[in-house]
Amino acid sequence: MRSKFQKRSKKTGLAPGSLVHIGSKYVEKSKINLIRYSETFFEEKEISSIKDFCFENDKKEIAWLNVDGLQDIKLFEDIGELFGLHPLVLEDILNTDQRPKMEDYGAYIYLVLKNFYEQEGEGLQSDQISVILGKDFVLSFLERESKIFGSIKEKIGKSKGRIRKEGADYLTHALIDSIVDNYFIVLENLEEKIEVLEDDLVKKPTQSTLHDIHMFKRELIMLGKSLWPLREAINSLERSDSPLINKSIVVYFKDIYDHTIAIIDTVETFKDMLSGMLDIYLSTVSNRLNEVTKVLTVIATIFMPLTFIAGVYGMNFRYMPELEWRWGYFGALGVMLVVALLMVFYFKKKKWF
Amino acid sequence: MRSKFQKRSKKTGLAPGSLVHIGSKYVEKSKINLIRYSETFFEEKEISSIKDFCFENDKKEIAWLNVDGLQDIKLFEDIGELFGLHPLVLEDILNTDQRPKMEDYGAYIYLVLKNFYEQEGEGLQSDQISVILGKDFVLSFLERESKIFGSIKEKIGKSKGRIRKEGADYLTHALIDSIVDNYFIVLENLEEKIEVLEDDLVKKPTQSTLHDIHMFKRELIMLGKSLWPLREAINSLERSDSPLINKSIVVYFKDIYDHTIAIIDTVETFKDMLSGMLDIYLSTVSNRLNEVTKVLTVIATIFMPLTFIAGVYGMNFRYMPELEWRWGYFGALGVMLVVALLMVFYFKKKKWF
Amino acid sequence: MRSKFQKRSKKTGLAPGSLVHIGSKYVEKSKINLIRYSETFFEEKEISSIKDFCFENDKKEIAWLNVDGLQDIKLFEDIGELFGLHPLVLEDILNTDQRPKMEDYGAYIYLVLKNFYEQEGEGLQSDQISVILGKDFVLSFLERESKIFGSIKEKIGKSKGRIRKEGADYLTHALIDSIVDNYFIVLENLEEKIEVLEDDLVKKPTQSTLHDIHMFKRELIMLGKSLWPLREAINSLERSDSPLINKSIVVYFKDIYDHTIAIIDTVETFKDMLSGMLDIYLSTVSNRLNEVTKVLTVIATIFMPLTFIAGVYGMNFRYMPELEWRWGYFGALGVMLVVALLMVFYFKKKKWF
Amino acid sequence: MRSKFQKRSKKTGLAPGSLVHIGSKYVEKSKINLIRYSETFFEEKEISSIKDFCFENDKKEIAWLNVDGLQDIKLFEDIGELFGLHPLVLEDILNTDQRPKMEDYGAYIYLVLKNFYEQEGEGLQSDQISVILGKDFVLSFLERESKIFGSIKEKIGKSKGRIRKEGADYLTHALIDSIVDNYFIVLENLEEKIEVLEDDLVKKPTQSTLHDIHMFKRELIMLGKSLWPLREAINSLERSDSPLINKSIVVYFKDIYDHTIAIIDTVETFKDMLSGMLDIYLSTVSNRLNEVTKVLTVIATIFMPLTFIAGVYGMNFRYMPELEWRWGYFGALGVMLVVALLMVFYFKKKKWF
Amino acid sequence: MRSKFQKRSKKTGLAPGSLVHIGSKYVEKSKINLIRYSETFFEEKEISSIKDFCFENDKKEIAWLNVDGLQDIKLFEDIGELFGLHPLVLEDILNTDQRPKMEDYGAYIYLVLKNFYEQEGEGLQSDQISVILGKDFVLSFLERESKIFGSIKEKIGKSKGRIRKEGADYLTHALIDSIVDNYFIVLENLEEKIEVLEDDLVKKPTQSTLHDIHMFKRELIMLGKSLWPLREAINSLERSDSPLINKSIVVYFKDIYDHTIAIIDTVETFKDMLSGMLDIYLSTVSNRLNEVTKVLTVIATIFMPLTFIAGVYGMNFRYMPELEWRWGYFGALGVMLVVALLMVFYFKKKKWF
Repeated sequence: MRSKFQKRSKKTGLAPGSLVHIGSKYVEKSKINLIRYSETFFEEKEISSIKDFCFENDKKEIAWLNVDGLQDIKLFEDIGELFGLHPLVLEDILNTDQRPKMEDYGAYIYLVLKNFYEQEGEGLQSDQISVILGKDFVLSFLERESKIFGSIKEKIGKSKGRIRKEGADYLTHALIDSIVDNYFIVLENLEEKIEVLEDDLVKKPTQSTLHDIHMFKRELIMLGKSLWPLREAINSLERSDSPLINKSIVVYFKDIYDHTIAIIDTVETFKDMLSGMLDIYLSTVSNRLNEVTKVLTVIATIFMPLTFIAGVYGMNFRYMPELEWRWGYFGALGVMLVVALLMVFYFKKKKWF
Repeated sequence: MRSKFQKRSKKTGLAPGSLVHIGSKYVEKSKINLIRYSETFFEEKEISSIKDFCFENDKKEIAWLNVDGLQDIKLFEDIGELFGLHPLVLEDILNTDQRPKMEDYGAYIYLVLKNFYEQEGEGLQSDQISVILGKDFVLSFLERESKIFGSIKEKIGKSKGRIRKEGADYLTHALIDSIVDNYFIVLENLEEKIEVLEDDLVKKPTQSTLHDIHMFKRELIMLGKSLWPLREAINSLERSDSPLINKSIVVYFKDIYDHTIAIIDTVETFKDMLSGMLDIYLSTVSNRLNEVTKVLTVIATIFMPLTFIAGVYGMNFRYMPELEWRWGYFGALGVMLVVALLMVFYFKKKKWF
Repeated sequence: MRSKFQKRSKKTGLAPGSLVHIGSKYVEKSKINLIRYSETFFEEKEISSIKDFCFENDKKEIAWLNVDGLQDIKLFEDIGELFGLHPLVLEDILNTDQRPKMEDYGAYIYLVLKNFYEQEGEGLQSDQISVILGKDFVLSFLERESKIFGSIKEKIGKSKGRIRKEGADYLTHALIDSIVDNYFIVLENLEEKIEVLEDDLVKKPTQSTLHDIHMFKRELIMLGKSLWPLREAINSLERSDSPLINKSIVVYFKDIYDHTIAIIDTVETFKDMLSGMLDIYLSTVSNRLNEVTKVLTVIATIFMPLTFIAGVYGMNFRYMPELEWRWGYFGALGVMLVVALLMVFYFKKKKWF
Repeated sequence: MRSKFQKRSKKTGLAPGSLVHIGSKYVEKSKINLIRYSETFFEEKEISSIKDFCFENDKKEIAWLNVDGLQDIKLFEDIGELFGLHPLVLEDILNTDQRPKMEDYGAYIYLVLKNFYEQEGEGLQSDQISVILGKDFVLSFLERESKIFGSIKEKIGKSKGRIRKEGADYLTHALIDSIVDNYFIVLENLEEKIEVLEDDLVKKPTQSTLHDIHMFKRELIMLGKSLWPLREAINSLERSDSPLINKSIVVYFKDIYDHTIAIIDTVETFKDMLSGMLDIYLSTVSNRLNEVTKVLTVIATIFMPLTFIAGVYGMNFRYMPELEWRWGYFGALGVMLVVALLMVFYFKKKKWF
Repeated sequence: MRSKFQKRSKKTGLAPGSLVHIGSKYVEKSKINLIRYSETFFEEKEISSIKDFCFENDKKEIAWLNVDGLQDIKLFEDIGELFGLHPLVLEDILNTDQRPKMEDYGAYIYLVLKNFYEQEGEGLQSDQISVILGKDFVLSFLERESKIFGSIKEKIGKSKGRIRKEGADYLTHALIDSIVDNYFIVLENLEEKIEVLEDDLVKKPTQSTLHDIHMFKRELIMLGKSLWPLREAINSLERSDSPLINKSIVVYFKDIYDHTIAIIDTVETFKDMLSGMLDIYLSTVSNRLNEVTKVLTVIATIFMPLTFIAGVYGMNFRYMPELEWRWGYFGALGVMLVVALLMVFYFKKKKWF
C-alpha cells in the first residue's frame, strides 16, 4: 500500500488530467488482447498497437479489449482518443490508488474495481482493474497480468452459457462477477490462517500471536475499505437508468450485489472473531501472571516461617533451653513439618493448586 | 458455518445461474410433499417426481409444494421450468449461504429465510428455507428435513383457524410465522445457558468461562446478522404493493415484523449481559491477583523482620552482650512477638485481612 | 423479564390471533371500571361483566373503560366484539412482552405503553398498559391493578382542569402523560441509589460495587429499550392525521414528546455516570494492587540486605577478623542501621511512602 | 442538575399547563426591564408590574421585555394573557429543565436556550433563558439575574451597529449570539483547567487526576447534551419560513449556526483529549507498578543467592573444609561479590535499571 | 490551535460582522498579488493598495487577486466594498478558526479551506485559505505567505494546460486541487513518522512512545475534523447549480471529491494503525511485567528452599546427628543441588525460561 501512496504525492502540482502512471511496474510492456464475438462469430488476437484495432459495428459484434499493464502512456492516449474517453477517466485508470467506483459518462460507464491476492511475505495486496462499458465494446485495464478473466475468455471461446447471446452489459457483469468471486477465495485463505492462529492462541500464545491478530485485522480493514465503495458501485449499476444496461441484466447485478453483502458480512464476522481472540489473548497473559504470582506466594509463604524457625534455633544465646533437649532437633523439624502442612492445607482450601 | 462458506469458493468461475448445490447433504434424496386444499377440499401426498404434480387451478385450490433436501439438481430444473422461475432464483435456493431477503419477481415473490437450531457439540446451526409465493401456490424448500411446518400441515388438515379460508399469502405468512416463533425457542435455550454461565461466573470463574462468553457472543452475532436482513425482508413484504398479497393480510406481516423486532431486542439484551459478564470476569481475575499478592505481602512483611532479628543473634561476634543475658533468648522471642503483632495490627487497620 | 419471555415460547405453533394471556397473573379476576362523563355529567361504576356496559353516544358523553388484570380471556373476546377490535390487537393486549407502539386502525388508535416500578428484591419491573382511543371512548388495559390513573379519575370526578371539556383524545393524552411522569419518579429513585453507590465507590469499593454498577446499567438499558419506541409512538401520535385527534391536542402530545426526550437524556447521563464509575472502580482496584506491591517491595528491600549482613557474620569461618573486634557487633548493627536509613531515604525520594 | 431534576417529580400528577416554577430561586423577586426603541427613539425603564407595560405599535417601535427570575407565577400569567401565549409555553418557561428548542406558534416563535457558567466549588452550572420573538416585540426570561445581555442593551442605547435599524428578528439574533459567544468563554476556562490537569498528569498523577478527568468529561457531556438541540433549534430558525424572520436576517442565523458547530467541534476535541489523558493515566499507573516490581525483583535476585551462601557457611557441620582455610572468609566474600556483580550485569543488559 | 481559539473569545460582545483579525500575525503587512489573464493575454503584478486594482471586464479577462496576510483590516473593507461582499464573509475571512465550508451568495461563491503544514517543534499547524469565485474574478486570501499556489501561477504564466482557456471556475478548481494535493504530502510525512514509531514500538517501547501515539492520534483527529467539512464543501460545489460553475467543470470537482475521500480513508487507516500500536504497546508493557515477575519467582523459588536447608543445619541443637556425619556437609550440598535442579526442571517444563 505504501509505495502507491507515496508515489501519489509526486503528482502534486501537475494539472488534473495529466497522464502519469502511479503504481508499481509489474510488466515491462502493456499487453493488449482483443476479443471480438457475436452469437455466431469469435476471434481472439493479441495486438501490438491500438492502431491494429478494427471493429465492425454493423455486424452486431461485441469487442472486448483487455490491457495488462499500465506503463505505456502513449497507448492510453490513443485509446482515449479512439473511444472518446474523458481525460480524468484516463488519469483514474493510470492512478492505481482509486477506490472502487462507478461513473456514468453517458456514452460509456466507467468502473474501478479492486482485485485482492496474497503475495508471499507481503500479505494481502490489491490490483486495480478498470472496466469501461460502451454500447458494443468493453475495455478492461489490469495493473498486472492476471488470469482472473481466463475462464470468461474460455467461456466466450467455447460458446458456453448465455454469454455469446448477450451484449456488452452481460460481459461487464461477468467481469465483475469473477472479481467478486475472487474475494471468496481470499477470505477462505484468511479463514484458514485465522483458524491456525486460533489454535496457537489456545496452545501457546506469544507476543507474535498478538502481532498476527493485528496484521489480520488490518488486512480485514483494508478489504472492508474496498468493499463498501464496491457495494456502492454495484448498487449504482443496478439502479442506473443508463441505456447501456439492459433491464434483463439488472437482476444479475442484483445477484452480485447480494454476493458483495455476503462478503462484507463475512469480513465483519472475521473482525468479531479477531476481537474475541484479542480478548482471550490478553486474558491468557493476565492469567499467566496470576499463576506465576501464585507460585511465588505459595513458595514464600511455606518457606518463610520455616526459615524463621531455623533462624531462631540458630541464635547463639547462652540460655536457650530447647537446644539442650534430647529431641529438640527432631521436635523443631516436626514443628516445621506441621507449619508446612498447615500452609499446604490452607492453599488447597483456597484452591491455589 | 465454515463448510458452507468453503464450498462456495468451488463455484468460482461458473456462470451465474449454474445450478450447484452448495451446503451439506443432510438427506440422501429430496423428499417432495404436495398439499392441495381449498375451503372444502384437502389432499396431502408424497410425490416422487415433479411430473406427478397436478393442480387444478379452476377449483380455487391452493397448492403447497414442500421439498426437503436440495441434492436433486434435476428436480429443481424441472420445478424452475414448471413454475417459470428465474435461473438466479434456482441458484439462490441451492446456495445455502444466502442472507434472508425478499425479492418480488412480479409473477411470484421469492423469500429466503433462516431456521436456527442447536446441534449437539457444534453449537448453533442454521438451515436455509426458501419460500416462493405465487398466485395460488406456495413452494417451500428446506435444506434439511424438519418438523418446523408440521403444525401448519396439521392445521390445514384439521381445518383449524382461518388458514383454509385464506389464500396463498396467508399460508406464506403462517410459514414465516412458524420460523420466527422458532427464534423464541432458540433464544430461550440460549438464555438458560447464559444463566448457568452467570452462576459459574460468580462461583468459580475459569478460563473456560471466558471461552463460553465469547462463544455465546459469537452465536448472538450470528443470529443478529440473520435477523437484520430478516426484518428488512418482512418489512418489504409488509410494504409491498404486489397483487399477490391481499391488503387484509398486511396486518399479519406487521405482526411478524413486531416479533422480529422483539427478537432483535432480546439478542441485544443478551449481548449487553455478556459484555457485563466479561467485565465481571476480568475484574474477578484481577481481584484474585490482588488477593494473592496481599497474602504474599502479609507473610513477607511479618517474617522478614523476625528472620532478621534471628539472624542478628545468630552472628558469631565475640562481644555480643545480649547473648550472655539470662533472659536474652526469651527477650528476643518477646521482641519478635511484639514486631509480629504490630504488623498484624497494621494490616488489620489497612483491612488487608 | 424472564418469566414473560419464557412463556412466550409456549405460544409457538398457535395461529396468530389466538388469545392466550402471556405474563404473570397478578390479580385473580379482571376488575372492570367504567367512567362516563361529559362537561355536565359524571358517573363511575365497577361492572362485573362487559354486558353491563351501556353508553349513550348521543349525549356527547365520553366513556372510559379501565380493565385491571388480563386473565379473563372471555372478557377480552367480548370487548373485542363490542368495539370491533382486530384479533391481533386483542392478542397484543394479552401478550405483555410488546414494545411500546402506536397503531392506527382507522376507527381506533391502539397504543402499547410500559409502566415501570421498583419491586422489592427484584429490581425494576415493567407492566404493560394498552390504551385504545376511539371516537368517544377510551379503553385502558392494565396488566396489574395500579393507582397510576388515580389522579386522573379524581380530576374527572372533581371536574378539575380542562379534562371534562375536552374529548377522548385529551383523556388519552392525560393517561400517557401520567405514565411518562412516572418515569421521572423511577429515575429519581435510581439516581438516589446511584449516589449511594458513588459514595461507596470512594469509601470502600468491593466486588459488590461492581455488581451493582452492572445491575443499574442493565436496568438503564432496559428502560432505554422501552423509551426509544415510546418516543416513536408518541411522535406518531403527534404527526398522525387521524380524525380521532383534534388539532388543538397535538401540542399536548408534543409536550409529552419533549418529556420523553428529557427522560432519554437523563438515562443517557446515568449511563455515562455508571461508565465513569466503572473506570474509577477498576482504577481503584489497580491502585490498591500497586499499594500492596509497594509495601512488599519496601519491606523486602530494607530487610534483605540486613539479613544478608547478619548472615555473613553468622558464618563459621575460623579466620574472620571482624568477629574478634571489640566493637564488631555494634559496628555491624551500625552498618545495618545506615543501610536501612539509606533505603528509607531512597523510597522517600521516590515518594513511595 | 440534581435539584432541578428532583423537583420535576413534584409536578407529577398536575395537569399539563399548570404553572409551577421548577428550579432554584436565585432572586427574591422577578425584575422586569422594558426597553422600547426605534431607529430614532430609545427608552429603558424598570417596571414593577406588567400592568405598567405600554407599547405603541403604530410608531414602528420594538419592545424588549426582559424578566430576571421566575418566582412570580402571577406575573407570568399576566404576561401570558397580554401576549396571548399558549399555557404550555408558560409552563416551559418556568420549568428550567428544558432542552434547547425552537417552536413556531405562528404569532410568535418560542426559543429555549441554555447559558452555562462556572460556579465556585460546584463546577459547571446552567441557566435556562427563554426568548419569545413576536412581530414587534421580544420577550426574554432569565432564570437568574445575569449580565449576559448587558452589551446588547448598551449597543441599543448608544445606537451602535445595525441593531437600531433592524427589527425584532435582529434583536433575537443578537440575544442568541451573545449566549453562543458565552460558550466560547466557558470552553476557554475549561481548556485552561484541562491544560493544568495535563501538566499534573505528566508530573505527578494521583487518583484525584482520574476524578478530575471524569469530572471534566461529565461537564463536556453535559455541554454536548445542550449543544446538539441548540444546533437543531438554530437550524430550525434558519430554515423557518415564518414571516417573523426577515430573509436578510437568515444569513446571521446561519453565522450563529456555524459558531455552534465550531463549539461542538471543540467539545469533541476536548473529549478526545480527555480520553487520551485517561489512557496515559492508566498506562502511567501500570508503568509504576512495573517499576516497583522491578526494584523488588532486582533486590531479591541479588540478595537471595548471597544470603544462601552466607547460610551455607553458617551451617554447623563438623567437617566443612572451607571453614578451616586461611582465606576462606575472604574467598566467600569474594564469591558473593562476583555473584552480585553478575546479577547487576545481567540486569544492566536487560535494561532494568 | 490554542492561540486562535483563545483570541476568539475576545470578540465576544462585538456585533456580528465587526472586522477583527483573529489569528496569529504571520506577516507584517498584507501582500497583494494581482494576475490578469485571458487565452491570449497575461499580466502579473504586486499592488500596494486595492485602489490600484483595475480590471477590464469587456476583454474576457480573468482576474485573480491573491492576498497573503490578514492584518490590514482597512484593505479588507475596501475589497468588501469593491466586490460587494457581505460583511459576514469578510468577518469569516479574517477569523481563521472557521471550518471548511462553501456558501453560495448568488453573485459569488465563498469557500473556506484549510492548508496543513508541519511546524518544527509544534507539530501539525493549519492555515485558513479563503477563496471567492465571482463571474470573472477569483479572490484568494491566505493567512500566511505560502508557496502553495506557486505552480498555478507558473502554469498560467507559461500557458500550460487548459487553465488559460477556461474561466474563473477552472482556476478555483486548480486552487482547491493544489490544497487537496498538499494533504497527500502531509499524510506522507505522517506515515514516515508512524513507521519510525512502529519500529521503536517493537524495539524499545517507552512511555514516550505512548505520548507519540497519542500526539499522532490527535493530529489525525485534527486533520479528520477539517476533512469531513471539506468533503461536504466540495460536494456542495459539485452539486451546486450556480451559474458561476460551468457544467463541464463539475467533473473536475468530482475528481477532487474522490481525492478527498481517498485522504479520509488514509486518515482512518492511520487511526486504525495507531489503535493497533496502542494495543501492542500496552500488551508489551504487561508482558514485561510478566517477565519481571517470572524472574523474581524463579529466583525466590530456587533459593528459598536452599536457604531453609542451610538454616536447618545452622541450628545450634546439641543433638543433631547429621552434623557429626563425615559426609554430612557434602550430603547437604548435594541435597541442595538436587532441590535446585528439580526446581529448574519444573520451570523448564512450565516454559518459564
